[in-house]
Amino acid sequence: MIRIIDSRKEDDKDLLKKLLDRSQLDESVVLQRVEEIVSNVRNKGNAAVFEYTKMFDKVYLTAENMRVTKEELDDAYNNVDNELIEVIRRAKANIEEYHVKQKEKSWFSTEKDGVILGQILRPLEIVGVYVPGGTAPLPSSVLMNVIPAKVAGVEKIVMATPPGKDGKINPVILVAANEAGADEIYKMGGAQAIAALAFGTESIPKVDKVTGPGNIYVNTAKRLVYGYCDIDMFAGPSEIMVVADKTANAKFVAADLLSQAEHDVLSASVLVTDSEKLAYEVKNEVERQTAYLGRKEIINKSIDDYGAIVIVNDMEKAIELVNQIAPEHLELCVEEPFGMVGEIKNAGAIFLGNYASEPLGDYFAGPNHVLPTSGTARFFSPLNVGEFIKKTSLISYSRKALSNVKDDVILFAESEGLSAHANAIRVRFEKGE
Amino acid sequence: MIRIIDSRKEDDKDLLKKLLDRSQLDESVVLQRVEEIVSNVRNKGNAAVFEYTKMFDKVYLTAENMRVTKEELDDAYNNVDNELIEVIRRAKANIEEYHVKQKEKSWFSTEKDGVILGQILRPLEIVGVYVPGGTAPLPSSVLMNVIPAKVAGVEKIVMATPPGKDGKINPVILVAANEAGADEIYKMGGAQAIAALAFGTESIPKVDKVTGPGNIYVNTAKRLVYGYCDIDMFAGPSEIMVVADKTANAKFVAADLLSQAEHDVLSASVLVTDSEKLAYEVKNEVERQTAYLGRKEIINKSIDDYGAIVIVNDMEKAIELVNQIAPEHLELCVEEPFGMVGEIKNAGAIFLGNYASEPLGDYFAGPNHVLPTSGTARFFSPLNVGEFIKKTSLISYSRKALSNVKDDVILFAESEGLSAHANAIRVRFEKGE
Repeated sequence: MIRIIDSRKEDDKDLLKKLLDRSQLDESVVLQRVEEIVSNVRNKGNAAVFEYTKMFDKVYLTAENMRVTKEELDDAYNNVDNELIEVIRRAKANIEEYHVKQKEKSWFSTEKDGVILGQILRPLEIVGVYVPGGTAPLPSSVLMNVIPAKVAGVEKIVMATPPGKDGKINPVILVAANEAGADEIYKMGGAQAIAALAFGTESIPKVDKVTGPGNIYVNTAKRLVYGYCDIDMFAGPSEIMVVADKTANAKFVAADLLSQAEHDVLSASVLVTDSEKLAYEVKNEVERQTAYLGRKEIINKSIDDYGAIVIVNDMEKAIELVNQIAPEHLELCVEEPFGMVGEIKNAGAIFLGNYASEPLGDYFAGPNHVLPTSGTARFFSPLNVGEFIKKTSLISYSRKALSNVKDDVILFAESEGLSAHANAIRVRFEKGE
Repeated sequence: MIRIIDSRKEDDKDLLKKLLDRSQLDESVVLQRVEEIVSNVRNKGNAAVFEYTKMFDKVYLTAENMRVTKEELDDAYNNVDNELIEVIRRAKANIEEYHVKQKEKSWFSTEKDGVILGQILRPLEIVGVYVPGGTAPLPSSVLMNVIPAKVAGVEKIVMATPPGKDGKINPVILVAANEAGADEIYKMGGAQAIAALAFGTESIPKVDKVTGPGNIYVNTAKRLVYGYCDIDMFAGPSEIMVVADKTANAKFVAADLLSQAEHDVLSASVLVTDSEKLAYEVKNEVERQTAYLGRKEIINKSIDDYGAIVIVNDMEKAIELVNQIAPEHLELCVEEPFGMVGEIKNAGAIFLGNYASEPLGDYFAGPNHVLPTSGTARFFSPLNVGEFIKKTSLISYSRKALSNVKDDVILFAESEGLSAHANAIRVRFEKGE
């Protein structure tokens, strides 16, 4: 049953406590274990990956069978519905088109006395994409991680995903990987896969960055390898916040709340509205629709634990709550959604109006569905092309230009006690130079 | 004594091993201790900060004296040479001017059937800048960390730096902080400062991102708080690689190698040249100049352990080495430096020609001196304005636009077994809607 919270009758602190009380995974309990896995893979390479894969996935890997072959890929295409392949291709085209718009350019500027300053942008060379296993394969996750890297110009994209007990990868995952442009696919999962990508093994190339969601073992391994390679953010349970006024459609709003609730028992679905009427209509719709949905048990648990309908006095209060909660997905089902956008400081993605339903963004519209969760939209961004780009500064000075500033640089260096720094400038203007 | 390595007589693997053998800090030895500090500060706030400051810095902090006051700032200005204040201001102007050029804009695109897609860019709200203590104050580090955040539009910049035994902060640090635009300065250092910034305490605001260099305790604390807030990269010992041909000036090259060698006994200074004559001239110059420099002991140790002059057959080999080593600072002291830029894949900053001496970039030219070390230029970038910006995706769809793609979205959702996702699209086209 979804709670109705009347913010007009609540202490602000209590209200926030209720809404911010999202699940937090406590990594410290697995830290030591994961450190051991990471360090074993780093030191022993393939042998350690094989050992852990046997232990956790019950699959015997070898250097020969760990990589998905051309035949396995062809086989996958034979086992996936053609219509779905076409949908994957159309989704890919949209995602690609949106991400191409994110591309930044290298630039330089010319200054007086011949000075040139600039910034060079280059793609990372090798990227590793992690795709979780489990019962429900998520081809959309493959597209959303691989395509931005591809658009950035990454030369080699290496995917890792745990094999099923039969030693195979789900065919839809393989098709999505191939369509998105993954170059190599390895059958391995968990912390051992992250370590293998970060440090390389006899068979697996060392990557510059690892992206992709995973469980607490995968997240902790990413934390530990950060700095040896780059990583993306940590993905927590999915969340949706809908801000709606009396013009919203209760049936649509309820359906969108439920679409996030079905992800996970830890998912959070929250409606904030200034219409008491809508609040109760949505409550009824949530119950009515849940009854005919497939993943009822997950939905009921997540709605009970993390679902809420909050009634607010006015939209100002709604916006305040949005900014405090920093939701992953935000829907603005209000009369003038664009009028509200400028007020939103923290959100992963904003869906405007009654027809920008959140699942549209999960699969098809083009923007990335890898979004900051658990309030991290305060500082993290949707996965984007820039995260697969590295920058290099460029400095070119003429003798005359350096001569104009040499005393300043020397004084600054000496104030830091760094006389060899001052010397490097000074020798250039010694007599005879 | 700087080694001369003739790459023409070396096995490639051995050569790389020698050059890539840079210092790596092993965090695992402090991980548990730092986790305890972080968790104590998180749970006990100020009290834990005070306790650790007493233990490590021998200073008794209180909620009243931990923050630098207006009077202390005024005092600092009275204790810093006016000429240095003016140099700091001119450096600031250059750094600001360069970083303003990095600013990206929010954008949107209009598509058919009224679809609007876009990306909103907003500054982070609160950022924490860590400034290490120690004997030599580094005001340039303050400028380089604070200014990009300021240019990004961050509302509040909170600085933390450990107090000396007298409970005070070096006046140059305070002046630099004030000139750069830091809003609040707290007297605390080490892992406890990072934790206080990441989680907030009774006195210290919880920040969205922590930046700034530090020792192994600071770095490990940053690793552990990553995800609760954002962090910048990990800074290792400074490095310089100079690629020079016979047109280079041995005196200048030697001086620039020494400028990095004086930072730290772990700093690496490497020259790669196709001119045997230059190699020996630089070797002699390194010895000659070291003799009159202030930080002789540090220089000798770092040149002995991590210095090298590598003779290569041709510039192609030099570029190959650059890309494998991915140096923090790269100088191209060659006849046509711009002709080489396109070949450089991995470097933090590139200095072109005989007058773009590395210390110019440390203090004054404008580009950031916070650069990726230890080979991380493969995937990390110089500190930049974009790192203080968060992005939000924007999706607006009309009924007609959604209607065109509804079957695709429904099919994709159902392929992932997510029926509530499919339902969210379906209800919008039910009879009567």
